Amino acid sequence: MLGVCYYPEHWPRERWAEDARRMRELGLTYVRIGEFAWSRLEPDPGCFTWAWLDEAIETLGQAGLKVVLGTPTATPPKWLIDQHPDILAVDQEGRVRGFGSRRHYSFSSRVYCEEARRIVTLLAQRYGQHPHVAGWQTDNEYGCHDTTRSYGPEDLRAFRLWLQARYGSIEALNRAWGNVFWSMEYRSFGEVDLPNQTVTEANPAHWLDFYRFSSEQVAAFNRMQVEILRAYSPERFIVHNFMGYTPDFDHFKLAQDLDIAGWDSYPLGFTDMDVLPCSEAEKVRYARTGHPDIAAFHHDLYRGVKPRWWVMEQQPGPVNWAHHNPAPAPGVVRMWTWEALAHGAEVVSYFRWRQFPQAQEQFHAGLNRPDFEPDVGFSEAARVAEELQSLSPLPPSGPAPVALVFDYEADWVYRIQPQGREFIYRDLVWVFYKALRALGLDVDFVPPGARLEPYRLVVVPSLPVVSEAALETFRHHQGVVVWGPRSGSKTEFLSIPPTLPPGRLQDLLPLRVTRVESTRPGLSEPVRWNGLEWPSGVWKEWVESDLPPQATFGDGKGALYRHQNHHYLAFWPGQDFLQSYLGALAKSLDLPLHPVPEGVRVRRRGDWVFAFNYSGQPQPAPAPTNARFLVGGPTLEAYNFCIWKAG
Amino acid sequence: MLGVCYYPEHWPRERWAEDARRMRELGLTYVRIGEFAWSRLEPDPGCFTWAWLDEAIETLGQAGLKVVLGTPTATPPKWLIDQHPDILAVDQEGRVRGFGSRRHYSFSSRVYCEEARRIVTLLAQRYGQHPHVAGWQTDNEYGCHDTTRSYGPEDLRAFRLWLQARYGSIEALNRAWGNVFWSMEYRSFGEVDLPNQTVTEANPAHWLDFYRFSSEQVAAFNRMQVEILRAYSPERFIVHNFMGYTPDFDHFKLAQDLDIAGWDSYPLGFTDMDVLPCSEAEKVRYARTGHPDIAAFHHDLYRGVKPRWWVMEQQPGPVNWAHHNPAPAPGVVRMWTWEALAHGAEVVSYFRWRQFPQAQEQFHAGLNRPDFEPDVGFSEAARVAEELQSLSPLPPSGPAPVALVFDYEADWVYRIQPQGREFIYRDLVWVFYKALRALGLDVDFVPPGARLEPYRLVVVPSLPVVSEAALETFRHHQGVVVWGPRSGSKTEFLSIPPTLPPGRLQDLLPLRVTRVESTRPGLSEPVRWNGLEWPSGVWKEWVESDLPPQATFGDGKGALYRHQNHHYLAFWPGQDFLQSYLGALAKSLDLPLHPVPEGVRVRRRGDWVFAFNYSGQPQPAPAPTNARFLVGGPTLEAYNFCIWKAG
Amino acid sequence: MLGVCYYPEHWPRERWAEDARRMRELGLTYVRIGEFAWSRLEPDPGCFTWAWLDEAIETLGQAGLKVVLGTPTATPPKWLIDQHPDILAVDQEGRVRGFGSRRHYSFSSRVYCEEARRIVTLLAQRYGQHPHVAGWQTDNEYGCHDTTRSYGPEDLRAFRLWLQARYGSIEALNRAWGNVFWSMEYRSFGEVDLPNQTVTEANPAHWLDFYRFSSEQVAAFNRMQVEILRAYSPERFIVHNFMGYTPDFDHFKLAQDLDIAGWDSYPLGFTDMDVLPCSEAEKVRYARTGHPDIAAFHHDLYRGVKPRWWVMEQQPGPVNWAHHNPAPAPGVVRMWTWEALAHGAEVVSYFRWRQFPQAQEQFHAGLNRPDFEPDVGFSEAARVAEELQSLSPLPPSGPAPVALVFDYEADWVYRIQPQGREFIYRDLVWVFYKALRALGLDVDFVPPGARLEPYRLVVVPSLPVVSEAALETFRHHQGVVVWGPRSGSKTEFLSIPPTLPPGRLQDLLPLRVTRVESTRPGLSEPVRWNGLEWPSGVWKEWVESDLPPQATFGDGKGALYRHQNHHYLAFWPGQDFLQSYLGALAKSLDLPLHPVPEGVRVRRRGDWVFAFNYSGQPQPAPAPTNARFLVGGPTLEAYNFCIWKAG
Repeated sequence: MLGVCYYPEHWPRERWAEDARRMRELGLTYVRIGEFAWSRLEPDPGCFTWAWLDEAIETLGQAGLKVVLGTPTATPPKWLIDQHPDILAVDQEGRVRGFGSRRHYSFSSRVYCEEARRIVTLLAQRYGQHPHVAGWQTDNEYGCHDTTRSYGPEDLRAFRLWLQARYGSIEALNRAWGNVFWSMEYRSFGEVDLPNQTVTEANPAHWLDFYRFSSEQVAAFNRMQVEILRAYSPERFIVHNFMGYTPDFDHFKLAQDLDIAGWDSYPLGFTDMDVLPCSEAEKVRYARTGHPDIAAFHHDLYRGVKPRWWVMEQQPGPVNWAHHNPAPAPGVVRMWTWEALAHGAEVVSYFRWRQFPQAQEQFHAGLNRPDFEPDVGFSEAARVAEELQSLSPLPPSGPAPVALVFDYEADWVYRIQPQGREFIYRDLVWVFYKALRALGLDVDFVPPGARLEPYRLVVVPSLPVVSEAALETFRHHQGVVVWGPRSGSKTEFLSIPPTLPPGRLQDLLPLRVTRVESTRPGLSEPVRWNGLEWPSGVWKEWVESDLPPQATFGDGKGALYRHQNHHYLAFWPGQDFLQSYLGALAKSLDLPLHPVPEGVRVRRRGDWVFAFNYSGQPQPAPAPTNARFLVGGPTLEAYNFCIWKAG
Repeated sequence: MLGVCYYPEHWPRERWAEDARRMRELGLTYVRIGEFAWSRLEPDPGCFTWAWLDEAIETLGQAGLKVVLGTPTATPPKWLIDQHPDILAVDQEGRVRGFGSRRHYSFSSRVYCEEARRIVTLLAQRYGQHPHVAGWQTDNEYGCHDTTRSYGPEDLRAFRLWLQARYGSIEALNRAWGNVFWSMEYRSFGEVDLPNQTVTEANPAHWLDFYRFSSEQVAAFNRMQVEILRAYSPERFIVHNFMGYTPDFDHFKLAQDLDIAGWDSYPLGFTDMDVLPCSEAEKVRYARTGHPDIAAFHHDLYRGVKPRWWVMEQQPGPVNWAHHNPAPAPGVVRMWTWEALAHGAEVVSYFRWRQFPQAQEQFHAGLNRPDFEPDVGFSEAARVAEELQSLSPLPPSGPAPVALVFDYEADWVYRIQPQGREFIYRDLVWVFYKALRALGLDVDFVPPGARLEPYRLVVVPSLPVVSEAALETFRHHQGVVVWGPRSGSKTEFLSIPPTLPPGRLQDLLPLRVTRVESTRPGLSEPVRWNGLEWPSGVWKEWVESDLPPQATFGDGKGALYRHQNHHYLAFWPGQDFLQSYLGALAKSLDLPLHPVPEGVRVRRRGDWVFAFNYSGQPQPAPAPTNARFLVGGPTLEAYNFCIWKAG
Repeated sequence: MLGVCYYPEHWPRERWAEDARRMRELGLTYVRIGEFAWSRLEPDPGCFTWAWLDEAIETLGQAGLKVVLGTPTATPPKWLIDQHPDILAVDQEGRVRGFGSRRHYSFSSRVYCEEARRIVTLLAQRYGQHPHVAGWQTDNEYGCHDTTRSYGPEDLRAFRLWLQARYGSIEALNRAWGNVFWSMEYRSFGEVDLPNQTVTEANPAHWLDFYRFSSEQVAAFNRMQVEILRAYSPERFIVHNFMGYTPDFDHFKLAQDLDIAGWDSYPLGFTDMDVLPCSEAEKVRYARTGHPDIAAFHHDLYRGVKPRWWVMEQQPGPVNWAHHNPAPAPGVVRMWTWEALAHGAEVVSYFRWRQFPQAQEQFHAGLNRPDFEPDVGFSEAARVAEELQSLSPLPPSGPAPVALVFDYEADWVYRIQPQGREFIYRDLVWVFYKALRALGLDVDFVPPGARLEPYRLVVVPSLPVVSEAALETFRHHQGVVVWGPRSGSKTEFLSIPPTLPPGRLQDLLPLRVTRVESTRPGLSEPVRWNGLEWPSGVWKEWVESDLPPQATFGDGKGALYRHQNHHYLAFWPGQDFLQSYLGALAKSLDLPLHPVPEGVRVRRRGDWVFAFNYSGQPQPAPAPTNARFLVGGPTLEAYNFCIWKAG
């Protein structure tokens, strides 16, 4: 299904009905409204102007649209900030982050939590049972603009309470963090500071707990809203629109309180801005399509975050916020929409109905231009709507053949303590993901501790802290598991395990990492596997084990070990190696491989196979010769897709 | 005429008379003194020591020199700052910018305006009618060191008043800025903050008004001084010494209160520091001369700012403030001086008489060395003085054949909202200017709204906000006008015009820009014009029009339109294209073209044609074979110039 | 002799005795303990827990180890910071540098000086005469993490007093700094601010005095500790462990109060992080050894700082703090140790006994792994211990043939006022040093004013401020002296000398530098010497002199002058030129040259010649054919060394 984001408060009331009519005509089902509208709902403290929103909902609903109502907590109005300046967050350098844009609040501000509770309650009471309100969106893009962590007095207060609850006694904290080192010991929780602005790096255990705390504060703020909405608005779904790769809080945990994970898909900006890193050549080649794995990565990630998921904001044309903002190539908006559906999206909602000619996002295209004419994206959306009608219902998505264990905490651990400048968790996950996609394998992202039964192949790019619960799922798993470097290398308190890495994983992998090293680009050491040499770099481990190595470094040391169904990579793998190695494993497991030409990617949904062509040239569809095509045919046009039925 | 900047307070009184005598001997007419001397005029609050300045003026005047007296407001003394710390400016990060160098004040400090008024009044009363005082310089290099904008409480206070005066009601401001977006609405002017330190970008309309306000504060501060000087010092001229490209305030507007625009010409430092951007190869090639267009650009700009203009500070040797500070090649100081005269300078004044061996500028060469011996620049200045005597009077400068419409506000608009990282107004103007200069065309810079009658060709690199008054001048202009991209793309309040860009210009150009995009370097798209393909990049527009395109993009869309005498470029043009396109236009208009060899530039003054050789090799002068040379001859030596009479 | 750094407080008491036994078994003599242990010595204000330290010292001493006891002042505990937040330093941007790592104090905090005095006194009283305590280490790595200079109220207070003591009257200061420039004059010392956070650069003389002041504050803080230790702990030596190149304070002056200069040798991190600059190719080539001159440079520097010197911390494996942290190549820990001994180290002490699995340095290898097993470095240290036993005693180090005059103040002068971005004192010293080492010459670093009699060749890379005392030593010196550019170019108050550079040196060098220039990379000008052209860049001087130039620039100006035994380079020399020029001089002086193959370096100690092979391939030892080898032989294996007796 399709939807759109709409801001009735931006447009004359006289136009609402026609806008609604045209949305329906276009084939849209959902319309998201209300986020950011606080100053119009409560222009003065305690004075509410519900009438316009009443009318907007009525108008949209009457036209046959289902309304997703946003809570406006991402943009508290100026009068509220002036009453309570301690709502504002403080950045890592100690500067207050002021009013004048959005997301200007700290999750730990007590006043703000109360104010957010107040406005959400009022909204939920008024519209919670409205027949046209189908669901709710909480806030907007948690964590965007680096807003997960704040360093002010309210944050310090809450962090100390959080530590007290976690450790019980200050002695326990001192022990857990190793504070005897450098005389960092505290005598009470009231002595603990935030970890920013130390002379040199703070204790990494201190940072990790602050990251955990900050992540939980986001979830708690969201949960507060969810509980109100559940109470006053039963039987409506609750969604949040997450942003592109924003690892600062644990989306798996936050989403436990939601019904649907939404995410905001801007493939061009994400490619330009290295949300997932692209080479300069890729940035040029895919400037008008986005990197062919960048939307898919997020679709798969957010499907892992919540089985029901939407694209809550789909880029419909050029945007305003990247360093460079090109127009999508012709057809690409349609292709993106179909790719989201292929990956299992329940709804794709375009952002926004109409380009707003003022303020920060005036260069952000919509389905309509600011002169009220349809823009390019409009006709592409219309085509999707027609196609959807003729193809519905799509077959349900089953589990993928491969699971990728993704861990937000791993991102934190390596950000806090990379030990080598190029050791970035995001990049390691990305190289695993791209290798699997190049093999034509569908991938499910799962958190550590998730059920692994459905998967014959599980890849764990790296999991530094292995909980007992997560270990348990691996212990009983029959499928092949490939562990990346540094897995099991840390305890819960970010120290080296007493038995050395991989610590708890030694149950599964009888080996011991006695030394690690990081190397600079240019200092590559080949890894010998399968009779060939594969370049490696960034990271290398020295392993002691009775197992025979499956691959070796140039100096003869073991680089890859296998024990029963568990494989361990003692180095940072390149994409070529992974494609070859995981390809061999997949073949031995009889997984469905679809090696793809450059710029082409495939994805299954039930027995339908979708192929997408991100390149500017026609490409052969990677389909069997006798494939029965539902859309397109054996030649895949540029910026287009096809669907065939799996044999 | 020639002059020099002198600081008698730096040198023993015993030496003043001899210095004065040698200045006259050298052939200098003017001597600028007094700027920066506050701590010597008022060493303690209210205690004045005029005697030394009385004597200095007397000594210099007696020697036959005309004195330009500077107001010392760029350097308030420490005791004043200690009495009133709120004089100090605050930077964008919220840090107070302290005492200890210069320009340590905010233009919005009420106390400082009063103190500046006080000292200027006292100076004007004492010396306003002094026979040796020929004129006044206000302050020093407004805006230098990023001092136009300040972010402290005094600035906030003044900005709120300015907004109130501009908008009358807060509702009008909210509407103008589109503050409904992201709930940015205010209930009173007292709620408006400065636009710095927001969580993500502030409203661009908010920024633009803050830029406008800040620009006007500079002009108001200057006007306050001018009014005092006019009152107490009738019949003396008033000048300010502007810096190299400092777009933060509108020089056209400020200069309305002046008689003369001075500017400070440091071609080597400007080239090294990208005051106008130079390639690495150009920085090496022109390290000892400066880029051949960099001084000329400023001469033409400041002649546009005010018909009477001086080079108030002419670099006489190596300076101290660039990343690299090489010595000018032999002869280049003379060449720079003559180039300024060729462009119409009334006076060229060297900075400074003698290198001061202490403090921040001790590595800044003067005409004399710190050991009191003449430095290299001295003999070059002496040669100019002799040449001037034999060649005077120079013929008057008439209007150039080409006008370039230059707009400070355009710089602000694109700095605030570039939409593509490489879209920098300065760079666009620079490429137009260099193309015209390569054709040997003289250029007049004019502000929007200026009389255009004299010009057969007008280029407008970009003019986003077109006022009704400016439009009027174009409406009636008969000459050819070439509009660059994004012209007319914004309303006065920085929003997209209701009829889409080019908004008001649609009166002249019946077309509509329906989409724009910015692209990264490397993603070039050729523009087809005149049977050839020209590389383009940075910026592209999609145009709807009934006009037939004069040039097309690779995808067939129109890239260049013409309606009657108006031409519109829907892309960011390269220099090669502009040279070819403007050259063809100029030819069709019968303008005097002088295509020049590399490193050579020409400039007319009346019927004299000057040619300057910035290259290290002799070059043929681009003169007709039968040219009558006043200086030099058909072969232009390295770092030299020639003059011939136009046929 | 060998030693190790140990933190008993990190490990169970039960393990101390065994650790001590194994240390002795390994062949270690010294063990450093106690630094950083404040929170364990005084867990609450005034409550002391000496018992553990009593026991630790006893245990270690009983095992036969000599204890070096550290004062714990680098890490004041949290309760002390909370009682007196003004202990904390303030960074150049005005931000307080908080608790949570180490070195969190300002040297100018009065409270902290008292508190440091208190804890050091208590320690000295308790352990000063302990039979197992052989010596003391003050604090830890002064200046590390940019902690020499602080910009808070306590620093300002102390700086004003320091200025008052230095200048006596504010008029004298104003004159010395040239404060008439830009009206920077003060009326009292109470008006002087710190030089940070000015609008543009502060007066360089202001900065230089602040650098000098800051340097003296470090020395004063150390002296305070030394005086206590001398009083309560007679006959024990006092050492401090300096860091890699940390020029912010004058080590020569501070070390006057010490018995021994220690330094902390981390060749891999120093190479990776440009502590001395290495090309990208060198960083790759020497990633596992460190640059072959980088440890040696420091050995020679710190031997100059104090004739008795230790390596107090020797890297034993990968570290945690560089951008990249590779493992040393096999054998390199042994090679480093022997290289330190060859350069005259009295003791080499490994850091640390055992890798601590928690907190900031958990990735820093020790001689033992965190699982209590020996790490790679352990066996290499053991081998050194055995070798030492068979080779002791080593012959004493005599003076080297060449002295390099090294001046901390020179580093400050050029950092404050580089005048060309690439003019970095460190880099200039480094190029001189590398040239001498490539010739196989041993080098002694000496401060200006040191006795020069022993040296037939003295090189002075640059000495901008030449004191009368330093001049005196040169005046009477018979050996050859090579002066680098900018020598003598400044007075004590950082102004240009009245007679122009080289100022006071004009007694020795009858010449006058009339102009200087800095040039960008790419603008190289060849210097012609000895019939060849040598590339030069960065810096060039114009010299007036009656002396005939020994080398000339491309434009014919003199580049190199000689007067009697003094040589003056009027340009920034490249390494090739220096090797050739200094080589010719050395040859003429009959100094012992040992030109070395790539990656090989030599060093004499008495009549023993050591050669070290930093390359990964065997190399011929640069020994005479009939050399008598004490260790190794004519072929030098990779990462190994040999010793032969000089003929």
